[in-house]
Amino acid sequence: MKEIESIKESGGFLNRYTHESSSCQCEMTFSVYLPPQADKGKVPTLYWLSGLTCSDDNARTKAGAQRYAAEYGIAVVFPDTSPRGDEVSDEPERYDLGQGAGFYVNATQSPWSKNYQMYDYVINELPALVEANLPLLPDVKSVSGHSMGGHGALICGLKNPGAFRSVSAFSPITNPVNGGWGQGCFGLYLGEDKSAWEEYDATCLVKAGAKVSDILIDQGDADEFLHEGQLLPENFEAACTEQGQSCTIRMQPGYDHSYHFIASFLGEHFAFHAGYLKG
Amino acid sequence: MKEIESIKESGGFLNRYTHESSSCQCEMTFSVYLPPQADKGKVPTLYWLSGLTCSDDNARTKAGAQRYAAEYGIAVVFPDTSPRGDEVSDEPERYDLGQGAGFYVNATQSPWSKNYQMYDYVINELPALVEANLPLLPDVKSVSGHSMGGHGALICGLKNPGAFRSVSAFSPITNPVNGGWGQGCFGLYLGEDKSAWEEYDATCLVKAGAKVSDILIDQGDADEFLHEGQLLPENFEAACTEQGQSCTIRMQPGYDHSYHFIASFLGEHFAFHAGYLKG
Repeated sequence: MKEIESIKESGGFLNRYTHESSSCQCEMTFSVYLPPQADKGKVPTLYWLSGLTCSDDNARTKAGAQRYAAEYGIAVVFPDTSPRGDEVSDEPERYDLGQGAGFYVNATQSPWSKNYQMYDYVINELPALVEANLPLLPDVKSVSGHSMGGHGALICGLKNPGAFRSVSAFSPITNPVNGGWGQGCFGLYLGEDKSAWEEYDATCLVKAGAKVSDILIDQGDADEFLHEGQLLPENFEAACTEQGQSCTIRMQPGYDHSYHFIASFLGEHFAFHAGYLKG
Repeated sequence: MKEIESIKESGGFLNRYTHESSSCQCEMTFSVYLPPQADKGKVPTLYWLSGLTCSDDNARTKAGAQRYAAEYGIAVVFPDTSPRGDEVSDEPERYDLGQGAGFYVNATQSPWSKNYQMYDYVINELPALVEANLPLLPDVKSVSGHSMGGHGALICGLKNPGAFRSVSAFSPITNPVNGGWGQGCFGLYLGEDKSAWEEYDATCLVKAGAKVSDILIDQGDADEFLHEGQLLPENFEAACTEQGQSCTIRMQPGYDHSYHFIASFLGEHFAFHAGYLKG
């Protein structure tokens, strides 16, 4: 991996890297915030998965994560949301398919399957890369994300028991097989057999018995995508209740789907994860 | 004034407004963050003046101000950095002149003088407008800003004794008559008589005896514009020492000119201003 930028923030460093991804078969860019505590020893890691249209840059610029990361001594890894590049398949007319919209799945259908292996990328390739090259405690990690990235955080946690000490999400797409965004791309990425879709659907995974230690979800009740039926937290909550999965879903009155919502509650998510990462 | 957007953040509301400006002879856009305390009564105000190329949106998105404003119960007003619109003079090839680069002066030279009256706008028109329409304590205000906006904050404070309870700045242009940015636009905005330039130069104002209660400046020592000689804090510091103006300039090792630097220290600026606004 090659460092292409390093910016001092809150006593630590916000670094940006590129590398040739074997999972995605293209050059990938990601950012890592190393808190000041990383100067003295290895630190735990929070993976932050971003939403549709985002790159690694949105959350590091707009969420205000770095000051909390510095306060708690937790590194933050910001992956991109899809493979990128002129050689990578895309659908420029759509913001919810192709580049910027990888949905954290391993695509099985042509032409997407060549590069769109974001699930393997964020679960295996990227953690191995950063743990080998940066002062990060191996396997001491949690995951969070927003919208499509909240979906990513939930499925990464649920599909890998024990891999993440805690999982949280803002405004996550919790049941994509029943929402327009998921239905609009899962068929193209994964084929027509809906059992393949359910392997990347947090609500279906919980119903099928998947478990993770603890989940915190914040959802604004003025979120237009909640009202459109894209997010469906009520389905996820029902599945968790049915299966005894520990999950706190907080409906936050008046908040929308934006980074202003994330910034409002991200400190509480850091406190939640710190309890598991540093306990 | 017309509200065009309202986003809940940290318990308060980040609102955006447009109005027909009599100073600037065009429609102007600005944002105000009203903290949750403003629901129960009037609150003090911090004016935040942004830098070159920015609009009212940059700081509200990237600085992380709102959470501190909510913590301290201080409203934040984010003006634009210049008049805007197809009818407003501009120099599209230059980022340091015209739209996005008003430098908080009252231009006297054609064609700029028609619309570029940003000093009157931020000192008189905008405070009167927001104090008449929003739950803000009249005349209980402080001012801060970044780069060109740090210059704006310093001159607004120094030229109006008693108007602002405290002044702070990040990476301010402290002596524009001796830096490339100031020299490149003050002649066009203000004419060739350099005594007119000195009326909008913080270092010259302090040398001429202007005073303000207290000034806090943070400056990164890895700031490329510091090394280019655009900012010249050493000149400002010498003038303050000579004249007995209270001023703390903190050189922050390793920090650059970006919003990541602002985000790192903005909480300390809120604490500084709160001491004057709420004392």
